[in-house]
Amino acid sequence: MEEYLEFAIEIAKYAGGIMRKYFQEDNGSSYKGDNTIVTKADTEINHYLIERVKERYPEHSVDGEEEKFGTSNYVWICDPVDGTAMYARHIPVAVFSLALVVDGKPVIGVVYDPFLNRLYQAIEGKGAYCNDIPIHVSDIVLGDKRSVSNFDIWVDAPYDISEVMKKLEKQSYFVAIGSVIRASMCVATGDFNAAIFPGGAGKYCDMAAVKVIVEEAGGKVTNLFGENQRYDQTIQGAIISNGKVHDEIEEVLKKYMKKKI
Amino acid sequence: MEEYLEFAIEIAKYAGGIMRKYFQEDNGSSYKGDNTIVTKADTEINHYLIERVKERYPEHSVDGEEEKFGTSNYVWICDPVDGTAMYARHIPVAVFSLALVVDGKPVIGVVYDPFLNRLYQAIEGKGAYCNDIPIHVSDIVLGDKRSVSNFDIWVDAPYDISEVMKKLEKQSYFVAIGSVIRASMCVATGDFNAAIFPGGAGKYCDMAAVKVIVEEAGGKVTNLFGENQRYDQTIQGAIISNGKVHDEIEEVLKKYMKKKI
Repeated sequence: MEEYLEFAIEIAKYAGGIMRKYFQEDNGSSYKGDNTIVTKADTEINHYLIERVKERYPEHSVDGEEEKFGTSNYVWICDPVDGTAMYARHIPVAVFSLALVVDGKPVIGVVYDPFLNRLYQAIEGKGAYCNDIPIHVSDIVLGDKRSVSNFDIWVDAPYDISEVMKKLEKQSYFVAIGSVIRASMCVATGDFNAAIFPGGAGKYCDMAAVKVIVEEAGGKVTNLFGENQRYDQTIQGAIISNGKVHDEIEEVLKKYMKKKI
Repeated sequence: MEEYLEFAIEIAKYAGGIMRKYFQEDNGSSYKGDNTIVTKADTEINHYLIERVKERYPEHSVDGEEEKFGTSNYVWICDPVDGTAMYARHIPVAVFSLALVVDGKPVIGVVYDPFLNRLYQAIEGKGAYCNDIPIHVSDIVLGDKRSVSNFDIWVDAPYDISEVMKKLEKQSYFVAIGSVIRASMCVATGDFNAAIFPGGAGKYCDMAAVKVIVEEAGGKVTNLFGENQRYDQTIQGAIISNGKVHDEIEEVLKKYMKKKI
Protein backbone atom coordinates (compact mmCIF):
# COMPACT_ATOMS: atom_id res chain seq x y z
CA MET A 1 0.00 0.00 0.00
CA GLU A 2 2.84 2.42 0.88
CA GLU A 3 4.35 1.76 -2.54
CA TYR A 4 1.04 2.52 -4.27
CA LEU A 5 0.75 5.73 -2.25
CA GLU A 6 4.25 6.85 -3.27
CA PHE A 7 3.35 6.17 -6.89
CA ALA A 8 0.13 8.20 -6.58
CA ILE A 9 1.98 11.12 -4.96
CA GLU A 10 4.57 11.16 -7.74
CA ILE A 11 1.79 11.36 -10.35
CA ALA A 12 0.02 14.09 -8.34
CA LYS A 13 3.11 16.32 -8.17
CA TYR A 14 3.68 15.94 -11.91
CA ALA A 15 0.02 16.71 -12.60
CA GLY A 16 0.23 19.82 -10.44
CA GLY A 17 3.10 21.08 -12.58
CA ILE A 18 0.97 20.71 -15.69
CA MET A 19 -1.92 22.52 -14.00
CA ARG A 20 0.32 25.40 -13.01
CA LYS A 21 1.84 25.56 -16.50
CA TYR A 22 -1.47 26.16 -18.26
CA PHE A 23 -3.17 28.19 -15.56
CA GLN A 24 -2.13 31.74 -16.41
CA GLU A 25 -1.74 31.25 -20.14
CA ASP A 26 -4.11 29.95 -22.80
CA ASN A 27 -5.39 26.67 -21.43
CA GLY A 28 -6.95 25.55 -24.71
CA SER A 29 -10.35 25.00 -23.17
CA SER A 30 -13.13 23.51 -25.27
CA TYR A 31 -16.52 21.94 -24.65
CA LYS A 32 -17.24 18.21 -24.60
CA GLY A 33 -20.42 16.53 -25.82
CA ASP A 34 -22.03 16.85 -22.41
CA ASN A 35 -21.30 20.60 -22.47
CA THR A 36 -18.67 20.34 -19.76
CA ILE A 37 -15.34 22.00 -20.29
CA VAL A 38 -12.00 20.31 -20.92
CA THR A 39 -8.52 21.89 -21.05
CA LYS A 40 -5.08 20.83 -22.26
CA ALA A 41 -4.23 20.08 -18.62
CA ASP A 42 -7.06 17.50 -18.30
CA THR A 43 -6.05 15.52 -21.37
CA GLU A 44 -2.28 15.71 -20.78
CA ILE A 45 -2.56 14.57 -17.15
CA ASN A 46 -4.97 11.74 -17.94
CA HIS A 47 -2.72 10.50 -20.74
CA TYR A 48 0.40 10.69 -18.56
CA LEU A 49 -1.30 8.62 -15.84
CA ILE A 50 -2.17 5.87 -18.32
CA GLU A 51 1.42 5.72 -19.61
CA ARG A 52 2.78 5.49 -16.07
CA VAL A 53 0.33 2.78 -14.93
CA LYS A 54 0.96 0.71 -18.08
CA GLU A 55 4.68 0.83 -17.33
CA ARG A 56 4.53 0.22 -13.56
CA TYR A 57 1.36 -1.80 -12.96
CA PRO A 58 0.39 -3.24 -16.36
CA GLU A 59 -2.10 -5.60 -14.68
CA HIS A 60 -4.07 -2.63 -13.25
CA SER A 61 -6.54 -0.50 -15.15
CA VAL A 62 -7.10 3.26 -15.33
CA ASP A 63 -10.38 5.12 -15.37
CA GLY A 64 -9.94 8.84 -15.87
CA GLU A 65 -12.53 11.46 -16.61
CA GLU A 66 -10.97 11.93 -20.06
CA GLU A 67 -9.47 8.54 -21.00
CA LYS A 68 -9.58 4.89 -19.83
CA PHE A 69 -7.39 1.78 -20.08
CA GLY A 70 -7.80 -1.93 -19.22
CA THR A 71 -10.19 -3.91 -17.06
CA SER A 72 -9.05 -5.04 -13.64
CA ASN A 73 -10.47 -5.08 -10.12
CA TYR A 74 -7.51 -2.79 -9.26
CA VAL A 75 -8.45 0.51 -10.88
CA TRP A 76 -6.66 3.86 -10.72
CA ILE A 77 -9.52 6.33 -10.76
CA CYS A 78 -8.61 9.89 -11.62
CA ASP A 79 -10.10 13.33 -12.05
CA PRO A 80 -7.21 15.11 -13.76
CA VAL A 81 -8.55 18.61 -13.03
CA ASP A 82 -11.56 18.94 -10.78
CA GLY A 83 -13.11 22.38 -10.98
CA THR A 84 -12.20 22.75 -14.65
CA ALA A 85 -14.73 25.54 -15.23
CA MET A 86 -12.99 27.55 -12.50
CA TYR A 87 -9.51 26.55 -13.69
CA ALA A 88 -10.28 27.66 -17.23
CA ARG A 89 -11.42 31.03 -15.85
CA HIS A 90 -8.23 31.56 -13.83
CA ILE A 91 -9.75 30.96 -10.41
CA PRO A 92 -7.22 28.97 -8.35
CA VAL A 93 -9.75 26.51 -6.93
CA ALA A 94 -9.06 23.28 -8.80
CA VAL A 95 -7.29 20.11 -7.78
CA PHE A 96 -5.92 16.81 -9.11
CA SER A 97 -7.42 13.63 -7.66
CA LEU A 98 -6.30 9.99 -7.85
CA ALA A 99 -7.49 6.88 -6.03
CA LEU A 100 -6.70 3.20 -6.12
CA VAL A 101 -10.05 1.42 -6.02
CA VAL A 102 -10.14 -2.32 -5.34
CA ASP A 103 -13.43 -4.11 -6.03
CA GLY A 104 -15.30 -0.80 -5.87
CA LYS A 105 -13.68 0.37 -2.64
CA PRO A 106 -11.14 3.21 -2.53
CA VAL A 107 -8.10 2.08 -0.51
CA ILE A 108 -5.72 4.91 -1.38
CA GLY A 109 -6.53 8.52 -2.14
CA VAL A 110 -4.39 11.49 -3.12
CA VAL A 111 -5.59 15.03 -3.87
CA TYR A 112 -3.18 17.78 -4.86
CA ASP A 113 -3.81 21.53 -4.83
CA PRO A 114 -1.02 22.94 -7.00
CA PHE A 115 -1.83 26.56 -6.14
CA LEU A 116 -1.22 26.22 -2.41
CA ASN A 117 1.10 23.21 -2.79
CA ARG A 118 -1.09 21.11 -0.50
CA LEU A 119 -1.07 17.35 -0.82
CA TYR A 120 -3.90 15.47 0.87
CA GLN A 121 -3.45 11.72 1.23
CA ALA A 122 -4.89 8.65 2.92
CA ILE A 123 -4.45 4.91 3.04
CA GLU A 124 -7.49 3.01 4.31
CA GLY A 125 -7.12 2.44 8.05
CA LYS A 126 -4.07 4.69 8.41
CA GLY A 127 -5.45 8.21 8.85
CA ALA A 128 -5.48 11.23 6.55
CA TYR A 129 -2.75 13.83 6.10
CA CYS A 130 -2.17 17.20 4.46
CA ASN A 131 1.52 17.80 3.74
CA ASP A 132 2.28 15.02 6.23
CA ILE A 133 0.32 16.64 9.07
CA PRO A 134 -2.71 14.65 10.34
CA ILE A 135 -6.03 16.25 9.42
CA HIS A 136 -9.41 15.88 11.08
CA VAL A 137 -12.98 16.95 10.38
CA SER A 138 -14.70 19.55 12.58
CA ASP A 139 -17.57 18.98 15.00
CA ILE A 140 -19.46 22.06 13.77
CA VAL A 141 -23.18 21.42 13.49
CA LEU A 142 -25.75 23.08 11.21
CA GLY A 143 -27.02 26.30 12.76
CA ASP A 144 -23.60 27.11 14.28
CA LYS A 145 -22.42 30.53 13.06
CA ARG A 146 -19.16 28.89 11.94
CA SER A 147 -21.04 26.45 9.68
CA VAL A 148 -19.87 26.60 6.05
CA SER A 149 -21.08 23.99 3.57
CA ASN A 150 -20.67 23.48 -0.15
CA PHE A 151 -23.08 22.41 -2.82
CA ASP A 152 -23.09 21.93 -6.57
CA ILE A 153 -25.91 22.60 -8.96
CA TRP A 154 -25.49 22.21 -12.69
CA VAL A 155 -27.90 21.95 -15.57
CA ASP A 156 -27.42 18.25 -16.41
CA ALA A 157 -27.05 16.91 -12.86
CA PRO A 158 -29.28 13.84 -12.32
CA TYR A 159 -30.63 15.10 -8.98
CA ASP A 160 -32.34 18.42 -8.31
CA ILE A 161 -31.29 19.69 -4.89
CA SER A 162 -32.47 23.29 -5.20
CA GLU A 163 -35.42 22.71 -2.85
CA VAL A 164 -33.01 21.09 -0.41
CA MET A 165 -30.83 24.18 -0.46
CA LYS A 166 -33.82 26.40 0.29
CA LYS A 167 -34.58 24.28 3.36
CA LEU A 168 -30.98 24.33 4.62
CA GLU A 169 -29.89 27.86 3.76
CA LYS A 170 -30.81 29.32 7.14
CA GLN A 171 -28.53 26.86 8.93
CA SER A 172 -25.23 27.30 7.18
CA TYR A 173 -23.30 29.67 4.96
CA PHE A 174 -23.60 27.81 1.66
CA VAL A 175 -20.99 28.28 -1.01
CA ALA A 176 -20.45 26.59 -4.35
CA ILE A 177 -16.74 27.03 -4.89
CA GLY A 178 -16.78 25.12 -8.16
CA SER A 179 -14.72 22.06 -7.21
CA VAL A 180 -16.40 19.38 -5.13
CA ILE A 181 -13.06 17.72 -4.43
CA ARG A 182 -11.47 20.94 -3.15
CA ALA A 183 -14.60 21.51 -1.04
CA SER A 184 -14.37 17.95 0.30
CA MET A 185 -10.78 18.57 1.37
CA CYS A 186 -12.17 21.54 3.34
CA VAL A 187 -14.48 19.03 5.03
CA ALA A 188 -11.47 16.79 5.78
CA THR A 189 -9.54 19.67 7.37
CA GLY A 190 -12.53 20.95 9.34
CA ASP A 191 -13.03 24.19 7.40
CA PHE A 192 -16.40 23.12 5.97
CA ASN A 193 -18.82 20.73 7.67
CA ALA A 194 -20.41 19.26 4.54
CA ALA A 195 -20.64 19.11 0.78
CA ILE A 196 -23.65 17.94 -1.20
CA PHE A 197 -22.91 16.54 -4.64
CA PRO A 198 -25.70 15.57 -7.07
CA GLY A 199 -23.49 13.78 -9.63
CA GLY A 200 -24.22 10.44 -11.30
CA ALA A 201 -22.65 8.80 -14.37
CA GLY A 202 -18.86 9.23 -14.52
CA LYS A 203 -18.82 11.12 -11.25
CA TYR A 204 -17.15 8.34 -9.27
CA CYS A 205 -13.98 9.99 -10.61
CA ASP A 206 -14.79 12.94 -8.34
CA MET A 207 -15.56 10.84 -5.28
CA ALA A 208 -13.09 7.92 -5.15
CA ALA A 209 -10.18 9.72 -3.45
CA VAL A 210 -12.58 11.90 -1.44
CA LYS A 211 -14.22 8.80 0.07
CA VAL A 212 -11.05 7.45 1.67
CA ILE A 213 -9.48 10.80 2.60
CA VAL A 214 -12.59 12.27 4.28
CA GLU A 215 -13.40 9.03 6.12
CA GLU A 216 -9.80 8.64 7.30
CA ALA A 217 -10.08 12.23 8.58
CA GLY A 218 -13.02 11.10 10.71
CA GLY A 219 -15.85 12.10 8.38
CA LYS A 220 -18.50 10.24 6.44
CA VAL A 221 -19.17 9.83 2.71
CA THR A 222 -22.32 8.13 1.39
CA ASN A 223 -24.65 8.46 -1.56
CA LEU A 224 -27.46 11.04 -1.37
CA PHE A 225 -29.66 8.44 0.37
CA GLY A 226 -27.16 7.85 3.18
CA GLU A 227 -26.06 4.48 1.82
CA ASN A 228 -22.65 3.07 1.00
CA GLN A 229 -21.88 2.62 -2.72
CA ARG A 230 -19.17 1.47 -5.13
CA TYR A 231 -16.74 4.10 -6.42
CA ASP A 232 -15.91 2.52 -9.78
CA GLN A 233 -19.27 2.96 -11.46
CA THR A 234 -22.17 5.46 -11.68
CA ILE A 235 -22.80 6.92 -8.24
CA GLN A 236 -26.04 8.16 -6.74
CA GLY A 237 -24.56 11.51 -5.75
CA ALA A 238 -22.76 12.01 -2.47
CA ILE A 239 -23.03 13.54 0.97
CA ILE A 240 -19.54 14.37 2.23
CA SER A 241 -19.64 15.43 5.85
CA ASN A 242 -17.95 15.68 9.22
CA GLY A 243 -20.33 12.94 10.42
CA LYS A 244 -22.14 15.23 12.87
CA VAL A 245 -24.38 16.82 10.21
CA HIS A 246 -24.78 13.75 8.01
CA ASP A 247 -28.14 12.47 9.25
CA GLU A 248 -29.75 15.90 9.20
CA ILE A 249 -28.70 16.52 5.59
CA GLU A 250 -29.80 12.99 4.63
CA GLU A 251 -33.28 13.60 6.11
CA VAL A 252 -33.73 16.87 4.21
CA LEU A 253 -32.51 15.22 1.00
CA LYS A 254 -34.96 12.33 1.42
CA LYS A 255 -37.83 14.80 1.76
CA TYR A 256 -36.97 17.47 -0.81
CA MET A 257 -34.60 16.05 -3.44
CA LYS A 258 -35.99 15.22 -6.87
CA LYS A 259 -34.51 12.80 -9.36
CA LYS A 260 -34.36 14.53 -12.73
CA ILE A 261 -33.75 11.55 -15.01
CA MET B 1 -7.78 61.60 -10.78
CA GLU B 2 -4.53 59.93 -11.88
CA GLU B 3 -2.99 60.95 -8.57
CA TYR B 4 -5.89 59.43 -6.62
CA LEU B 5 -5.55 56.25 -8.65
CA GLU B 6 -1.82 56.00 -7.89
CA PHE B 7 -2.60 56.45 -4.20
CA ALA B 8 -5.26 53.71 -4.30
CA ILE B 9 -2.89 51.32 -6.09
CA GLU B 10 -0.18 51.91 -3.51
CA ILE B 11 -2.63 51.06 -0.70
CA ALA B 12 -3.85 47.98 -2.60
CA LYS B 13 -0.34 46.57 -3.01
CA TYR B 14 0.40 47.08 0.67
CA ALA B 15 -2.93 45.46 1.63
CA GLY B 16 -2.13 42.49 -0.59
CA GLY B 17 1.10 41.97 1.34
CA ILE B 18 -0.83 41.83 4.61
CA MET B 19 -3.33 39.39 3.08
CA ARG B 20 -0.55 37.09 1.92
CA LYS B 21 1.21 37.33 5.29
CA TYR B 22 -1.75 35.97 7.28
CA PHE B 23 -3.09 33.58 4.67
CA GLN B 24 -1.19 30.38 5.42
CA GLU B 25 -0.66 30.97 9.13
CA ASP B 26 -3.08 31.70 11.94
CA ASN B 27 -5.18 34.57 10.70
CA GLY B 28 -6.73 35.34 14.09
CA SER B 29 -10.28 35.06 12.79
CA SER B 30 -13.17 35.86 15.10
CA TYR B 31 -16.86 36.58 14.73
CA LYS B 32 -18.44 40.02 14.78
CA GLY B 33 -21.84 40.94 16.25
CA ASP B 34 -23.57 40.23 12.94
CA ASN B 35 -21.97 36.75 12.91
CA THR B 36 -19.68 37.59 10.02
CA ILE B 37 -16.02 36.77 10.30
CA VAL B 38 -13.12 39.20 10.71
CA THR B 39 -9.38 38.49 10.59
CA LYS B 40 -6.21 40.32 11.57
CA ALA B 41 -5.81 41.23 7.88
CA ASP B 42 -9.19 43.07 7.81
CA THR B 43 -8.46 45.24 10.81
CA GLU B 44 -4.82 45.97 9.93
CA ILE B 45 -5.60 46.97 6.36
CA ASN B 46 -8.55 49.14 7.35
CA HIS B 47 -6.46 50.93 9.99
CA TYR B 48 -3.55 51.46 7.59
CA LEU B 49 -5.88 53.04 5.02
CA ILE B 50 -7.20 55.51 7.59
CA GLU B 51 -3.67 56.54 8.61
CA ARG B 52 -2.66 57.06 4.99
CA VAL B 53 -5.75 59.09 4.05
CA LYS B 54 -5.40 61.28 7.18
CA GLU B 55 -1.83 62.02 6.15
CA ARG B 56 -2.37 62.56 2.42
CA TYR B 57 -5.99 63.78 2.07
CA PRO B 58 -7.02 64.95 5.55
CA GLU B 59 -10.09 66.67 4.07
CA HIS B 60 -11.42 63.31 2.76
CA SER B 61 -13.19 60.67 4.80
CA VAL B 62 -12.80 56.87 4.99
CA ASP B 63 -15.55 54.29 5.23
CA GLY B 64 -14.19 50.79 5.66
CA GLU B 65 -16.04 47.63 6.55
CA GLU B 66 -14.18 47.57 9.89
CA GLU B 67 -13.44 51.22 10.74
CA LYS B 68 -14.49 54.73 9.62
CA PHE B 69 -13.09 58.26 9.74
CA GLY B 70 -14.44 61.75 8.98
CA THR B 71 -17.39 63.11 7.00
CA SER B 72 -16.78 64.46 3.52
CA ASN B 73 -18.43 64.14 0.13
CA TYR B 74 -15.08 62.61 -0.96
CA VAL B 75 -15.09 59.19 0.68
CA TRP B 76 -12.57 56.37 0.34
CA ILE B 77 -14.76 53.28 0.57
CA CYS B 78 -12.97 50.05 1.32
CA ASP B 79 -13.57 46.37 1.81
CA PRO B 80 -10.22 45.32 3.30
CA VAL B 81 -10.74 41.60 2.62
CA ASP B 82 -13.75 40.55 0.58
CA GLY B 83 -14.42 36.85 0.86
CA THR B 84 -13.19 36.73 4.46
CA ALA B 85 -14.95 33.42 5.19
CA MET B 86 -12.96 31.86 2.33
CA TYR B 87 -9.74 33.67 3.27
CA ALA B 88 -9.99 32.44 6.86
CA ARG B 89 -10.39 28.89 5.52
CA HIS B 90 -7.32 29.10 3.29
CA ILE B 91 -9.18 29.30 -0.02
CA PRO B 92 -7.34 31.82 -2.22
CA VAL B 93 -10.47 33.59 -3.44
CA ALA B 94 -10.45 36.91 -1.61
CA VAL B 95 -9.54 40.42 -2.72
CA PHE B 96 -8.90 43.93 -1.45
CA SER B 97 -11.21 46.67 -2.76
CA LEU B 98 -10.98 50.47 -2.60
CA ALA B 99 -12.99 53.20 -4.31
CA LEU B 100 -13.08 56.96 -4.23
CA VAL B 101 -16.75 57.88 -4.09
CA VAL B 102 -17.80 61.49 -4.70
CA ASP B 103 -21.35 62.47 -3.76
CA GLY B 104 -22.38 58.81 -3.81
CA LYS B 105 -20.77 58.04 -7.17
CA PRO B 106 -17.64 55.87 -7.49
CA VAL B 107 -15.13 57.68 -9.71
CA ILE B 108 -12.07 55.51 -9.06
CA GLY B 109 -11.96 51.80 -8.27
CA VAL B 110 -9.10 49.44 -7.48
CA VAL B 111 -9.39 45.72 -6.68
CA TYR B 112 -6.33 43.62 -5.90
CA ASP B 113 -6.04 39.84 -5.92
CA PRO B 114 -2.85 39.13 -3.95
CA PHE B 115 -2.84 35.42 -4.80
CA LEU B 116 -2.60 35.88 -8.57
CA ASN B 117 -1.04 39.35 -8.30
CA ARG B 118 -3.82 40.86 -10.41
CA LEU B 119 -4.66 44.53 -10.05
CA TYR B 120 -7.97 45.65 -11.52
CA GLN B 121 -8.46 49.40 -11.88
CA ALA B 122 -10.69 52.03 -13.44
CA ILE B 123 -11.16 55.77 -13.55
CA GLU B 124 -14.65 56.87 -14.57
CA GLY B 125 -14.70 57.50 -18.33
CA LYS B 126 -11.24 56.04 -18.95
CA GLY B 127 -11.76 52.28 -19.31
CA ALA B 128 -10.92 49.35 -17.04
CA TYR B 129 -7.63 47.48 -16.81
CA CYS B 130 -6.16 44.36 -15.24
CA ASN B 131 -2.39 44.65 -14.79
CA ASP B 132 -2.49 47.53 -17.31
CA ILE B 133 -4.20 45.46 -20.01
CA PRO B 134 -7.69 46.67 -21.05
CA ILE B 135 -10.47 44.33 -19.92
CA HIS B 136 -13.95 43.87 -21.32
CA VAL B 137 -17.10 41.99 -20.37
CA SER B 138 -18.31 39.03 -22.48
CA ASP B 139 -21.39 38.90 -24.69
CA ILE B 140 -22.41 35.46 -23.35
CA VAL B 141 -26.16 35.20 -22.80
CA LEU B 142 -28.07 32.99 -20.36
CA GLY B 143 -28.66 29.55 -21.85
CA ASP B 144 -25.26 29.57 -23.61
CA LYS B 145 -23.21 26.53 -22.51
CA ARG B 146 -20.37 28.92 -21.60
CA SER B 147 -22.61 30.85 -19.20
CA VAL B 148 -21.19 31.01 -15.68
CA SER B 149 -22.79 33.28 -13.08
CA ASN B 150 -22.26 33.90 -9.40
CA PHE B 151 -24.66 34.40 -6.56
CA ASP B 152 -24.51 34.89 -2.81
CA ILE B 153 -26.91 33.58 -0.21
CA TRP B 154 -26.33 34.08 3.48
CA VAL B 155 -28.54 33.78 6.51
CA ASP B 156 -28.87 37.49 7.36
CA ALA B 157 -29.09 38.85 3.80
CA PRO B 158 -32.00 41.31 3.46
CA TYR B 159 -33.25 39.75 0.21
CA ASP B 160 -34.17 36.11 -0.37
CA ILE B 161 -33.10 35.09 -3.87
CA SER B 162 -33.38 31.32 -3.50
CA GLU B 163 -36.52 31.16 -5.64
CA VAL B 164 -34.75 33.30 -8.23
CA MET B 165 -31.90 30.81 -8.35
CA LYS B 166 -34.35 27.94 -8.93
CA LYS B 167 -35.78 29.80 -11.91
CA LEU B 168 -32.38 30.59 -13.43
CA GLU B 169 -30.43 27.40 -12.67
CA LYS B 170 -31.22 25.76 -16.00
CA GLN B 171 -29.71 28.67 -17.92
CA SER B 172 -26.30 29.04 -16.42
CA TYR B 173 -23.70 27.22 -14.36
CA PHE B 174 -24.19 28.98 -11.04
CA VAL B 175 -21.37 29.17 -8.55
CA ALA B 176 -21.02 30.97 -5.24
CA ILE B 177 -17.27 31.43 -4.99
CA GLY B 178 -17.53 33.28 -1.70
CA SER B 179 -16.31 36.74 -2.76
CA VAL B 180 -18.73 38.93 -4.70
CA ILE B 181 -15.93 41.33 -5.62
CA ARG B 182 -13.73 38.56 -7.04
CA ALA B 183 -16.77 37.25 -8.93
CA SER B 184 -17.49 40.75 -10.24
CA MET B 185 -13.94 40.99 -11.57
CA CYS B 186 -14.73 37.77 -13.46
CA VAL B 187 -17.67 39.66 -14.97
CA ALA B 188 -15.35 42.54 -15.90
CA THR B 189 -12.91 40.18 -17.66
CA GLY B 190 -15.66 38.22 -19.42
CA ASP B 191 -15.22 34.96 -17.48
CA PHE B 192 -18.65 35.21 -15.80
CA ASN B 193 -21.67 36.96 -17.30
CA ALA B 194 -23.34 38.03 -14.06
CA ALA B 195 -23.32 38.15 -10.28
CA ILE B 196 -26.39 38.59 -8.09
CA PHE B 197 -25.75 40.15 -4.69
CA PRO B 198 -28.50 40.43 -2.05
CA GLY B 199 -26.58 42.73 0.37
CA GLY B 200 -27.98 45.82 2.11
CA ALA B 201 -26.63 47.79 5.07
CA GLY B 202 -22.85 48.28 4.95
CA LYS B 203 -22.58 46.42 1.68
CA TYR B 204 -21.78 49.51 -0.40
CA CYS B 205 -18.22 48.66 0.71
CA ASP B 206 -18.46 45.60 -1.54
CA MET B 207 -19.92 47.43 -4.51
CA ALA B 208 -18.22 50.85 -4.79
CA ALA B 209 -15.11 49.78 -6.71
CA VAL B 210 -17.06 47.07 -8.57
CA LYS B 211 -19.50 49.68 -9.92
CA VAL B 212 -16.87 51.75 -11.74
CA ILE B 213 -14.61 48.84 -12.81
CA VAL B 214 -17.40 46.67 -14.26
CA GLU B 215 -19.09 49.61 -16.02
CA GLU B 216 -15.78 50.84 -17.46
CA ALA B 217 -15.29 47.27 -18.75
CA GLY B 218 -18.56 47.65 -20.66
CA GLY B 219 -20.89 46.03 -18.13
CA LYS B 220 -23.76 47.23 -16.00
CA VAL B 221 -24.24 47.50 -12.23
CA THR B 222 -27.60 48.41 -10.68
CA ASN B 223 -29.57 47.57 -7.56
CA LEU B 224 -31.69 44.39 -7.57
CA PHE B 225 -34.56 46.36 -9.12
CA GLY B 226 -32.49 47.52 -12.09
CA GLU B 227 -32.11 51.07 -10.78
CA ASN B 228 -29.09 53.25 -10.19
CA GLN B 229 -28.18 53.89 -6.55
CA ARG B 230 -25.65 55.67 -4.32
CA TYR B 231 -22.58 53.71 -3.23
CA ASP B 232 -21.91 55.47 0.08
CA GLN B 233 -24.96 54.26 2.00
CA THR B 234 -27.13 51.14 2.40
CA ILE B 235 -27.66 49.54 -1.01
CA GLN B 236 -30.61 47.55 -2.29
CA GLY B 237 -28.44 44.64 -3.40
CA ALA B 238 -26.83 44.56 -6.82
CA ILE B 239 -26.98 42.99 -10.25
CA ILE B 240 -23.49 43.01 -11.76
CA SER B 241 -23.59 41.93 -15.38
CA ASN B 242 -22.13 42.05 -18.85
CA GLY B 243 -25.17 44.14 -19.86
CA LYS B 244 -26.57 41.46 -22.20
CA VAL B 245 -28.16 39.42 -19.39
CA HIS B 246 -29.11 42.32 -17.14
CA ASP B 247 -32.77 42.76 -18.13
CA GLU B 248 -33.52 39.04 -18.00
CA ILE B 249 -32.10 38.71 -14.48
CA GLU B 250 -33.92 41.89 -13.41
CA GLU B 251 -37.25 40.47 -14.63
CA VAL B 252 -36.78 37.20 -12.74
CA LEU B 253 -35.76 39.11 -9.60
CA LYS B 254 -38.85 41.33 -9.82
CA LYS B 255 -41.05 38.25 -9.99
CA TYR B 256 -39.43 35.88 -7.50
CA MET B 257 -37.26 37.82 -5.04
CA LYS B 258 -38.57 38.33 -1.52
CA LYS B 259 -37.55 41.07 0.90
CA LYS B 260 -36.76 39.44 4.23
CA ILE B 261 -36.74 42.53 6.47
